[in-house]
Amino acid sequence: MPPSALTPFDRLKAACADDWRAYCQHDFVRQLGAGTLPGEAFRHYLEQDYLFLIHFARAWGLAVYKSRSVAELRQGLDMLKAIVDVELGLHVDYCRQWGVAEDDLLRIPEARATMAYTRYVLDAGNRGDLLDLHVALVPCMIGYAEIATWLNAQPFLKRDGNPYASWIAMYASDEFQDAADAERRWLDERLASVDPARFAELAGTFRDATRLEADFWQMGLERRF
Amino acid sequence: MPPSALTPFDRLKAACADDWRAYCQHDFVRQLGAGTLPGEAFRHYLEQDYLFLIHFARAWGLAVYKSRSVAELRQGLDMLKAIVDVELGLHVDYCRQWGVAEDDLLRIPEARATMAYTRYVLDAGNRGDLLDLHVALVPCMIGYAEIATWLNAQPFLKRDGNPYASWIAMYASDEFQDAADAERRWLDERLASVDPARFAELAGTFRDATRLEADFWQMGLERRF
Amino acid sequence: MPPSALTPFDRLKAACADDWRAYCQHDFVRQLGAGTLPGEAFRHYLEQDYLFLIHFARAWGLAVYKSRSVAELRQGLDMLKAIVDVELGLHVDYCRQWGVAEDDLLRIPEARATMAYTRYVLDAGNRGDLLDLHVALVPCMIGYAEIATWLNAQPFLKRDGNPYASWIAMYASDEFQDAADAERRWLDERLASVDPARFAELAGTFRDATRLEADFWQMGLERRF
Amino acid sequence: MPPSALTPFDRLKAACADDWRAYCQHDFVRQLGAGTLPGEAFRHYLEQDYLFLIHFARAWGLAVYKSRSVAELRQGLDMLKAIVDVELGLHVDYCRQWGVAEDDLLRIPEARATMAYTRYVLDAGNRGDLLDLHVALVPCMIGYAEIATWLNAQPFLKRDGNPYASWIAMYASDEFQDAADAERRWLDERLASVDPARFAELAGTFRDATRLEADFWQMGLERRF
Repeated sequence: MPPSALTPFDRLKAACADDWRAYCQHDFVRQLGAGTLPGEAFRHYLEQDYLFLIHFARAWGLAVYKSRSVAELRQGLDMLKAIVDVELGLHVDYCRQWGVAEDDLLRIPEARATMAYTRYVLDAGNRGDLLDLHVALVPCMIGYAEIATWLNAQPFLKRDGNPYASWIAMYASDEFQDAADAERRWLDERLASVDPARFAELAGTFRDATRLEADFWQMGLERRF
Repeated sequence: MPPSALTPFDRLKAACADDWRAYCQHDFVRQLGAGTLPGEAFRHYLEQDYLFLIHFARAWGLAVYKSRSVAELRQGLDMLKAIVDVELGLHVDYCRQWGVAEDDLLRIPEARATMAYTRYVLDAGNRGDLLDLHVALVPCMIGYAEIATWLNAQPFLKRDGNPYASWIAMYASDEFQDAADAERRWLDERLASVDPARFAELAGTFRDATRLEADFWQMGLERRF
Repeated sequence: MPPSALTPFDRLKAACADDWRAYCQHDFVRQLGAGTLPGEAFRHYLEQDYLFLIHFARAWGLAVYKSRSVAELRQGLDMLKAIVDVELGLHVDYCRQWGVAEDDLLRIPEARATMAYTRYVLDAGNRGDLLDLHVALVPCMIGYAEIATWLNAQPFLKRDGNPYASWIAMYASDEFQDAADAERRWLDERLASVDPARFAELAGTFRDATRLEADFWQMGLERRF
Repeated sequence: MPPSALTPFDRLKAACADDWRAYCQHDFVRQLGAGTLPGEAFRHYLEQDYLFLIHFARAWGLAVYKSRSVAELRQGLDMLKAIVDVELGLHVDYCRQWGVAEDDLLRIPEARATMAYTRYVLDAGNRGDLLDLHVALVPCMIGYAEIATWLNAQPFLKRDGNPYASWIAMYASDEFQDAADAERRWLDERLASVDPARFAELAGTFRDATRLEADFWQMGLERRF
């Protein structure tokens, strides 16, 4: 591939470049990197992200259901393990550090932005096939990986004493980055053979999901339900 | 039943009385009745409601899929006919009156509030059974019937020269009110036999859907995407 | 298109030519044309076909849910009307003529072959997208149209006094043939742009569904549950 | 509970006692215990059971999607791990011992009985809620546990030199029996609060699934596709 060529996934991003930037470089993200994000905003985000993860796990359960091969079953199962066995626990730990007990997490009302994004993904998956589902899911998965990498390259990043350093480190970790890379490769392979009409359809889903992810940051910033 | 007794559906509403009132007596609704709603707000609402109806039809398609009897098949089919054969056409006519051509309708971006409510309903239906789906759908169907009845009883209602008179008349019509009554009876019958834990679960869905309906009015009022 | 060229749908059939012939020219079909099919076999088939139609309607409800455009909504709705408003009624009439009352129809146990084919179609649709669903459905719809046309061209067809003449006439009618033609055109358009791997996947679904349709005739012939 | 009282799950079995017995004490099972089952029949069963497990995993993926709590997510995930990380591997090992290479497994056509049972379960789960899905799944899970226990108590059981001893031991193991017990407890708790109409509906699903499991043994015995 010549240096200038775009991969299929790059083309998905390019088709909604402004929305992708608005999401990945959102004020919530910048303040997180600068260490200036109000603790209340982060706590609100964390609580909603816990609820988000439950629906995200449901989405990967749906991916398992939609599988057509043992390889696809394992891909879905690996993601489920990462979310339910690892990420949910990290969120509970985090929340405890920020003063929210696990029992409280279950009593928190679900914010509109949480409902909007999660249900959009689940319906995209139910209406379409496994590729539709992945395309709706990746703004989260690959987006967080890109955000962590981007933050680590910014001059405004506060490295010492940043209360959000461990959050950034988690998504910058080899483990998370490798998972995002694997997902990118899977997508590139699948997207390579779709015709233009199908690509346009998927690009619409990707753009919607990206906008809903940006709304999720905004919800955190404004501490809205 | 003594006069004071609540039907099961009344209990669903009572379990989220403030949210139900905030939805049914929303400023958008009041301004519509008073004839003071800005035309731009109504047009924005109409356009999004057209997109809403498409997903609403999808939800009744899902109801047909979820049916366990010929009677349930027919119930879903009747609703589909009402939406696709009647309501969609009325919306196209309305939009034309308000200066929006049918072709334009297909180019309008879907607002967040539209995505949030429609996908919530569809996921509630896919996750649960036919009753979950109906409970998520009825804030729209029965809500609109109650809103039209309520408006017609308000002193602030502008009857002459109200540009929204035909909208109110449509939902106050015998046809629409009868459909809402039938739905209420179906729900009351189903809800009568559920145990308290299941009722609480359904009441949560009903409350969420009601809040998302109120957001839909607010989206119209603020002309937001 | 040169005379020798195959349409995409022809290629689906060609990919399982033996199975397609075994289904369309099944002994049940031949005996039906010759007027020699035992009445008991036809009655058993009719009863199961009534149950089949209920799930077939559910499948078209699923198609409505899976729609991405108003045109697709209408396509699904038209099929639902044809099945629920017309075909179910014809089946009830037929069954009455063959000595089975409508109430009895609801007490009839579902045969294995009925469960196998209907649930296969529904899962193919839920797992994949709208195209997967159609490909699983068409062996029934287009198959019946081809069977009626084929029978009408066979020397062994008994025209006078054939107790199954009206059954053949129903599927040979312009109305049914036109619906099958419309479905063929829709499929040809969709299949034209899929890549070979996707075509192979769909061909597998089509072959499975065709085999399960042949099993359905066999079930009738053997009067099995 | 007095000794004579039936648990809700016992009542499910009692509602189709003949079908349950026909499944659990099927000739395939008896010959397996007696060590007289033809190797070809067992191999055919094993190959189809491998395909079955793939859809069984899809069903537990669907259970994850249908979850309403973290506890339900974990229940589904645990079953997925047991199937994909353990049982599939055991099947590949077994198949190798019986002369079937892993690559061959992927080329084996799916038998009708495999399609019928697996798709029935998946549709029951998609149409209804998580309880419908479990009720359709348990004839397999709890049935295999009961079969292993029953075989170990039969005078005709061949203990020494039985080529199927390790198969029986696997399902008689504490690990498998404990999982079946946990599932029984979950079901008993859920079934305890359903009203009679709902119980009858679920009993119908349980009976159908049980009959389809018996067909699966019969398919092995007759080496049918």
